[in-house]
Amino acid sequence: MEKITLRPIGHVRNGRLRLADDNWCNVISEIQLDEYLPEESLDGIEAFSHIEIIFYFDQVAREKRIPLSRHPRGHKDWPKVGIFAQRNKDRPNHLGLTTVALIRRAGRSLIVKGLDADDSTPVLDIKPVFVEYLPHESIRQPDWSHELMKDYWR
Amino acid sequence: MEKITLRPIGHVRNGRLRLADDNWCNVISEIQLDEYLPEESLDGIEAFSHIEIIFYFDQVAREKRIPLSRHPRGHKDWPKVGIFAQRNKDRPNHLGLTTVALIRRAGRSLIVKGLDADDSTPVLDIKPVFVEYLPHESIRQPDWSHELMKDYWR
Repeated sequence: MEKITLRPIGHVRNGRLRLADDNWCNVISEIQLDEYLPEESLDGIEAFSHIEIIFYFDQVAREKRIPLSRHPRGHKDWPKVGIFAQRNKDRPNHLGLTTVALIRRAGRSLIVKGLDADDSTPVLDIKPVFVEYLPHESIRQPDWSHELMKDYWR
Repeated sequence: MEKITLRPIGHVRNGRLRLADDNWCNVISEIQLDEYLPEESLDGIEAFSHIEIIFYFDQVAREKRIPLSRHPRGHKDWPKVGIFAQRNKDRPNHLGLTTVALIRRAGRSLIVKGLDADDSTPVLDIKPVFVEYLPHESIRQPDWSHELMKDYWR
């Protein structure tokens, strides 16, 4: 079995203590670079307005079974869909991914807005947003996903 | 030392054999789900026009040293910046991340356009693009990053 071993490059500090489904809009987080990485690995990041954060749902990873197809949030009015057609946290590899606004860099830390990850979450990578990597065609997505997101960023 | 162990959920098939810097626009790739995952984990993904692919730069991971700050592509006219202010493949954890257009699903495979990963690359996660997760403010990024991307998607 092919295995891949990673090491966190930083951790989230934001005082959010439990995985919550909604209301992430005004959460300000600090991403602290882990000690083994030099501060210069963040140099130049201030020139970008947005960054992508790949993180690890470590609280979920301790649980056992992951349903690979389910009604999102258990909502029976929405279709049963596969885990790769959802963004929920109970997924193989427990990877989270969110684009956040970079408010400022403070030495070995980044202050960001809109990171939907709890306090102490391990961060695996940080990438700057290039417009060239954003989708340029219009986005099509099912109605249930709009309904699910209704209060997410409030 | 905190370690995180992941397992690929699929692999890329596209006939691209060497990591190339440019000209990814017309590359069509197949992402084949690994055998241990049920086909239903892709159910409903056809309702989305775009998906995000988190993959592993396995060829790079075999090399030893990663400079944590450098001139992008070794180009001295561009500033020396940290690895987290770049998207290049020589990075801690060797994670790649690209939003691609989903052309169609074929059973246990997804046919996608614009995945900048070589043949046989391990895929770690697939997430549907929700407009609610895209940045809604305008993107600011430095000039060097636009210059670097000039021929990338050609």
